Amino acid sequence: MSTSTRRFPKAVLFDAYGTLFDVHSVVAAAEQLFPGQGDALSQLWRLKQIEYSQLRTLADPGGSHYKPFWDVTLDALRYAARRLGLPLDAAGEKRLMDQYACLSAFPDTAPALRVLRERAALAADGRGLRLGILSNGNPAMLDIAVKSAGIAELFDHVLSVDAVRAYKPAPAAYALGTRALNVSAREIVFVSSNGWDVAGAGWFGYTTFWLNRAGAPFEELESKPRAIGGGMSDLVGFVEKLALTETD
Amino acid sequence: MSTSTRRFPKAVLFDAYGTLFDVHSVVAAAEQLFPGQGDALSQLWRLKQIEYSQLRTLADPGGSHYKPFWDVTLDALRYAARRLGLPLDAAGEKRLMDQYACLSAFPDTAPALRVLRERAALAADGRGLRLGILSNGNPAMLDIAVKSAGIAELFDHVLSVDAVRAYKPAPAAYALGTRALNVSAREIVFVSSNGWDVAGAGWFGYTTFWLNRAGAPFEELESKPRAIGGGMSDLVGFVEKLALTETD
Repeated sequence: MSTSTRRFPKAVLFDAYGTLFDVHSVVAAAEQLFPGQGDALSQLWRLKQIEYSQLRTLADPGGSHYKPFWDVTLDALRYAARRLGLPLDAAGEKRLMDQYACLSAFPDTAPALRVLRERAALAADGRGLRLGILSNGNPAMLDIAVKSAGIAELFDHVLSVDAVRAYKPAPAAYALGTRALNVSAREIVFVSSNGWDVAGAGWFGYTTFWLNRAGAPFEELESKPRAIGGGMSDLVGFVEKLALTETD
Repeated sequence: MSTSTRRFPKAVLFDAYGTLFDVHSVVAAAEQLFPGQGDALSQLWRLKQIEYSQLRTLADPGGSHYKPFWDVTLDALRYAARRLGLPLDAAGEKRLMDQYACLSAFPDTAPALRVLRERAALAADGRGLRLGILSNGNPAMLDIAVKSAGIAELFDHVLSVDAVRAYKPAPAAYALGTRALNVSAREIVFVSSNGWDVAGAGWFGYTTFWLNRAGAPFEELESKPRAIGGGMSDLVGFVEKLALTETD
């Protein structure tokens, strides 16, 4: 293989919640608090978290209705509990939010990140492949999450949309990645389990990988993923294939 | 009562889908096509319709990803059927979309609109209270809907966000109302059954009325409705009360 100056891809950026971290790892705690309702609470909590973040940016892309993701997450929990008629007191709320702060990483997350780093370290020009997170989570929330999951040292960049007060899929949020990495969007693989996030990243210009853990159909949007896989090992294969086929 | 030149409110603007028209009046047809799944299909269809419209505007408030609401509605139906594993063929799709074109108005819609018009006609300055629709629906879709529901003649304005290629709750969409009516947002009562729409309209500055037909809790957003009612007769009462208390 030739020594390349046009390595491709230059970086892999990951969405965090739902992609690296299992947002439904709160189900067990929710189930203990509200037997038989843990799954319903977790599902509605997540749905409302996404909805509220997007509404705030849609109602003003300039950020005047922006609120950090941790606060949006608490709002979503409170709504979900009230909507389901669950008596969530301060202690229960604290317990669920504490769980949310330390979500489990999916089991295939850390091993795949280590493989990507090792392969990258062997790259001919020695610069490797940069790995980062580009998340709706606010910095304090992301910091605790990556540390508690033991994956903090695997990332070169942990980028939060908080810097621009605009939630994904606003273009200003995706632009944080190209700005921090100083390469074009096409040279960055953007990985997300969320269909709306993949569509938004694709519209922005990223090379997108949809981590379709649930085996769901893709959204009926014209911005389709460049590649789809059921787990992180498929992502490793995709990145290797890209490196072989798109490097000169 | 004094002859007033500062009538309040000056107009009432209605959201259409879910507020005037019952989007779940497609359940019966869906249930005939897919026994036992009609309700699930209708719910997911509606959820995706809202999500797709908002994503398109969020990913570019300038409108480059805009697509008319009719097309978004079809996309949402296709996704919902695939996600639920329902074999929706071209004939089934046509049948459900035909139903969607002619949704039922809620039974209290036309009577309440007529009462508002009658009371307004008796107003001291003779100009009355203007009634309008401000909807995500594209013009052709709205035209069929109001005609088939027999309420077309009750509105002075039927405004579609299609004119600005931005879906609610984008400010550009709400601004269509103040522009067409040429009065301040505060002087217009904005009525919606959708919590996100009420919040967006409130952020924009409208005097909001949440038509809470389902008796749900309001969203955990700081933009709260000015008033809440369970049906259209409550709206009539609210408008009359405003006219008494806020006119000089």
